[in-house]
Amino acid sequence: MIKITLPDGSIKECAKLSTPMDVAKSISEGFARNVISAKFNDTIVETSTELNQDGSLVLYTWNDDLGKKAFWHSSAHILAQAILYLYPNAKLTIGPAIEKGFYYDVDFGEESISDNDFKKIEDKMLEFARQKFEFKLRSVSKADALSYYKGRNNEFKVELIENLTDGDITFCDHADFTDLCRGGHIPNTGIVKAIKLMSIAGAYWRGDEKNKQLTRVYGISFPKQKNLKEYLELLEEAKKRDHRKLGKELELFAFSRKVGQGLPLWLPKGTALRERLENFLKKAQKKAGYEMVMTPHIGQKELYVTSGHYEKYGADSFQPIHTPKEDEEFLLKPMNCPHHCEIYNVKPYSYKDLPIRFAEFGTVYRYEQSGELHGLTRVRGFTQDDAHIFCTPDQVDQEFKNVIDLSLYVLKTLGFENYTAQVSVRDLDNPDKYIGTVENWEKAEQAIINAAEDKGLDYVIKSGEAAFYGPKLDFMIKDALGRNWQLGTIQVDYTLPERFELTYKGSDNQLHRPIMIHRAPFGSMERFIAILLEHTGGNFPLWLTPEQVILLPISEKYKNYTEKVLELLENHEIRGLIDDRNEKTGKKIRDAEVKKIPFMLIIGQQEEDGDVISVRRHGGEDLGKMTVEDFSSLIKNKINSTLQQYKFN
Amino acid sequence: MIKITLPDGSIKECAKLSTPMDVAKSISEGFARNVISAKFNDTIVETSTELNQDGSLVLYTWNDDLGKKAFWHSSAHILAQAILYLYPNAKLTIGPAIEKGFYYDVDFGEESISDNDFKKIEDKMLEFARQKFEFKLRSVSKADALSYYKGRNNEFKVELIENLTDGDITFCDHADFTDLCRGGHIPNTGIVKAIKLMSIAGAYWRGDEKNKQLTRVYGISFPKQKNLKEYLELLEEAKKRDHRKLGKELELFAFSRKVGQGLPLWLPKGTALRERLENFLKKAQKKAGYEMVMTPHIGQKELYVTSGHYEKYGADSFQPIHTPKEDEEFLLKPMNCPHHCEIYNVKPYSYKDLPIRFAEFGTVYRYEQSGELHGLTRVRGFTQDDAHIFCTPDQVDQEFKNVIDLSLYVLKTLGFENYTAQVSVRDLDNPDKYIGTVENWEKAEQAIINAAEDKGLDYVIKSGEAAFYGPKLDFMIKDALGRNWQLGTIQVDYTLPERFELTYKGSDNQLHRPIMIHRAPFGSMERFIAILLEHTGGNFPLWLTPEQVILLPISEKYKNYTEKVLELLENHEIRGLIDDRNEKTGKKIRDAEVKKIPFMLIIGQQEEDGDVISVRRHGGEDLGKMTVEDFSSLIKNKINSTLQQYKFN
Repeated sequence: MIKITLPDGSIKECAKLSTPMDVAKSISEGFARNVISAKFNDTIVETSTELNQDGSLVLYTWNDDLGKKAFWHSSAHILAQAILYLYPNAKLTIGPAIEKGFYYDVDFGEESISDNDFKKIEDKMLEFARQKFEFKLRSVSKADALSYYKGRNNEFKVELIENLTDGDITFCDHADFTDLCRGGHIPNTGIVKAIKLMSIAGAYWRGDEKNKQLTRVYGISFPKQKNLKEYLELLEEAKKRDHRKLGKELELFAFSRKVGQGLPLWLPKGTALRERLENFLKKAQKKAGYEMVMTPHIGQKELYVTSGHYEKYGADSFQPIHTPKEDEEFLLKPMNCPHHCEIYNVKPYSYKDLPIRFAEFGTVYRYEQSGELHGLTRVRGFTQDDAHIFCTPDQVDQEFKNVIDLSLYVLKTLGFENYTAQVSVRDLDNPDKYIGTVENWEKAEQAIINAAEDKGLDYVIKSGEAAFYGPKLDFMIKDALGRNWQLGTIQVDYTLPERFELTYKGSDNQLHRPIMIHRAPFGSMERFIAILLEHTGGNFPLWLTPEQVILLPISEKYKNYTEKVLELLENHEIRGLIDDRNEKTGKKIRDAEVKKIPFMLIIGQQEEDGDVISVRRHGGEDLGKMTVEDFSSLIKNKINSTLQQYKFN
Repeated sequence: MIKITLPDGSIKECAKLSTPMDVAKSISEGFARNVISAKFNDTIVETSTELNQDGSLVLYTWNDDLGKKAFWHSSAHILAQAILYLYPNAKLTIGPAIEKGFYYDVDFGEESISDNDFKKIEDKMLEFARQKFEFKLRSVSKADALSYYKGRNNEFKVELIENLTDGDITFCDHADFTDLCRGGHIPNTGIVKAIKLMSIAGAYWRGDEKNKQLTRVYGISFPKQKNLKEYLELLEEAKKRDHRKLGKELELFAFSRKVGQGLPLWLPKGTALRERLENFLKKAQKKAGYEMVMTPHIGQKELYVTSGHYEKYGADSFQPIHTPKEDEEFLLKPMNCPHHCEIYNVKPYSYKDLPIRFAEFGTVYRYEQSGELHGLTRVRGFTQDDAHIFCTPDQVDQEFKNVIDLSLYVLKTLGFENYTAQVSVRDLDNPDKYIGTVENWEKAEQAIINAAEDKGLDYVIKSGEAAFYGPKLDFMIKDALGRNWQLGTIQVDYTLPERFELTYKGSDNQLHRPIMIHRAPFGSMERFIAILLEHTGGNFPLWLTPEQVILLPISEKYKNYTEKVLELLENHEIRGLIDDRNEKTGKKIRDAEVKKIPFMLIIGQQEEDGDVISVRRHGGEDLGKMTVEDFSSLIKNKINSTLQQYKFN
């Protein structure tokens, strides 16, 4: 007998050579039907692997990330099987599971495939799947493995095998198909009920453009047809909400080839929206005792040598800026902290002055390869809603908690109700990745975990995800389409105060080092707005949206009255515009819907006579006639219900 | 007889060989007593020069810039005379008039002088001056000139003479002193009644650090003792108002050696002040139809090749930023116009959409040699209150006038009542300095002059002062100490729209080029704040000043009541702070005076009992007891009287 420890801590005594599936069945037949993958002693195994020692076992279903991974990895085998069936001369290379689905890189030789072939391949895959072939992993000697693929003229698999150690090589068989594989499969092909090939792309063998170009076939699969349908609908919705598309339609931002890739230009409506977001945070920050500062976008190289950034990132960053005379060297600032440290150093502080909280909407520049750039979510220049808190050791806990409060206020006001926290700590196996003493790292990590506990956050600890100068807490939000985004970061830092020799005079009249907290509730204004666009589909909260109302006079006759209404609204600080085009009202309403303007005010003879407006909501709801005053109150009440004042204790 | 035309257009018939002084006397003996210099047919002459042909004559008194120049130039001769008398081995080099006074660069050989010697030299100068020696200019042959200075072992003057053309060389004699000189003297030394040597500094011969180091002696002189006294008082006042000193005392900004020279760090109070200034302009700009945009602080080199900036300034600017991969080249942006052109190019416009007005508080970076840097007035990074107006040819005049209105609103609200305008046009002799067609330059220059005329501005035209891409109008303000500053610029530009291929569709359905107006009422936020600091001596307008009130509880007993008062004031959006130090009230008042806080609110038993405050103004005026409500009204009324709404027609 062997002792199998389950994730809940319970221990099962099983016969030696029991499989994970046997263990699952011993828990419950129903549960076992859903088990598709397993991990034994921290190694992914097959559900049919015979366990021959004591150990801890985790069983995965489709609902687990590792369950999906096995599902999609196995689906890649089915794709490869179908391709070889339909294109016998194709050579397979590698085919992993990815975040959403899987792909296989194939050398189709003289042949080529297109979207038009997808149906044929999908049908063949489903035909194979329905036959419930078992996935069977077996060891194979290096010589046999090489011989197998040499016999099939597959130089790619041969190259892969040559780099493997004899004794560690496994093949996976299902039906008459065999593939070089490390394992991690679902029990059989029958579990795959729905398959969709998504796209094809070019990919170089081993990602090197000097190598042969292969065809990458992307696909996704599900245990139920319904899952696929939902997924495709989600994709369709995501396409509609793509912030690059919405940003263009709503005239928020643009890019210019001449200015450069990854350097957004903010158009008037986007600039005004950003300013409203910034003012919202400024107001809360003022209550929370922050002071705004402004610093230049460059700094001498020496500044970043002092901070440690140059050594760490210098080679991968925008290169130094030289001067025509005096040959000085400056760097575009990749972060604001060194500048804020220098502001701290302008005057001496006593412990009574702390905490000091410097905030800045600081635009920073970080080099990214052009292929990595994506709309506003991956750019080369962005604005952090940055702040640095300088405090005594006694104040760290409270300050960290205050920052959590402020971050949650920001997330909730912007409609992100669904979030968890991620505490990123050192990778203990790679101490060289970090600067600062072990003692300070331990203190800082503990301070973050304590604050997360005290605030009752739902958090996970991620090893190795810390910044090089300190551990951090990030908020992970789930958007309206169920996608996860990392937002709002808080970091504790004992290192920069050392490097910049920051001090304060303690009650003991001696000089001490303050502790620094870095924080940015939005993270990056650019990225935040992109996520907000995709989360809301461009239907921003009323207080934030570019135009709150559009006035639609049904003919030119009502021009004067319409302008009077707009002026009254503007006196109430309501943002509106008039659609005075010579178009039918129906057309104007449809256009206003596209622009996602929350309220349409229709103005004709009855409205002018009654000194009222007819109010229609975005989406179609008719609120009837009302006075401008009543409408203004309605808007204000709606805003007050979402945009609540920040309460700072 | 010859015909002499005077500046008022009148013509005087004079005997041939009459001198400018003769002409002055023929006008009035009293006027002649004040004449100290003259210009004949655009050449500076002596007042004793014999005129032998018809021509136009300008006569200068101390009140004219060219009168002062002759006065100070002549004073340099007296300084040289005194130095040679006291230090016979000294070698004279050059000694010009400067903006305020004059200097002489002297090789004192083995000897050296210090401030302690100034009195002795000044006394000797005055002794010589009182003897009313006449300044007499005479021609001298190159051989004689060389021989004269070789005999005195003065290799400097010998070098100067060697570079002159025989026949063009003149000496000036007064008393027993002779100097190589081109002319432009006052009649005699007796006019100089007051002399003050100001400082000494090192200076290399011909400004080249490879040459010998000389001693530069700075001095100033006046026709009346009273003038000197006033000048020294002004200097003293200017020192007190030095923005670098006040900026530090008021904690507005700082510099850091590590961040880099000429790169200001804005401290919390300075940042808040800047933001109030920016909001003030934003509000007026919104009324005037501007839209805010935001653009990155870098752009691809190609952007500035297109604009022409790279060819013009590339070599003297911060050098290109390279990337670690892809080897792209970016430049720190030296101006915002190319970015705004690219924003214009995001979408097509019809003539009905124009004018389009894009505004941005855009931070730009321009390399200056470290020796040229000075506080906030000469920096390497600064923020322009920039905007670009894109309009049709028909709209240029009106738009230009609107910008003049806005600029005057800004200047007047900030207390600069004393200003003139300067229209900078091409240097017609140097057409290569400019880009764009002659036709467009002519149109643009005329548009500016028309607008200045229509608005009734007091303006002068300066040839050769235009930007390389277009003519401009600058406002020249006189500050409280009578010093002149250039502020607020408006430029018309036909060139960038060509280079960026900007278009709009006209009523003829054809594509046309818009015209661009560049404008910045403050110019640079940094420089403007520096000038405002020196103009106001740190006593900012009430709406702008960092803290409007300081609360001085006379003992800890009144802490609660004081905090209640502050909260009430904050509800009225009045900025205040509490001085709760354990100090005597007298000391607190003195400290508040240094901080230039406009109102001090003294709080003791009587105030708490009566639910009032005792109000004292900066400077000492006692406004007596009043309620917080009454005091708030007082503040609001004061603000409303200086900060009036911008009225845009």
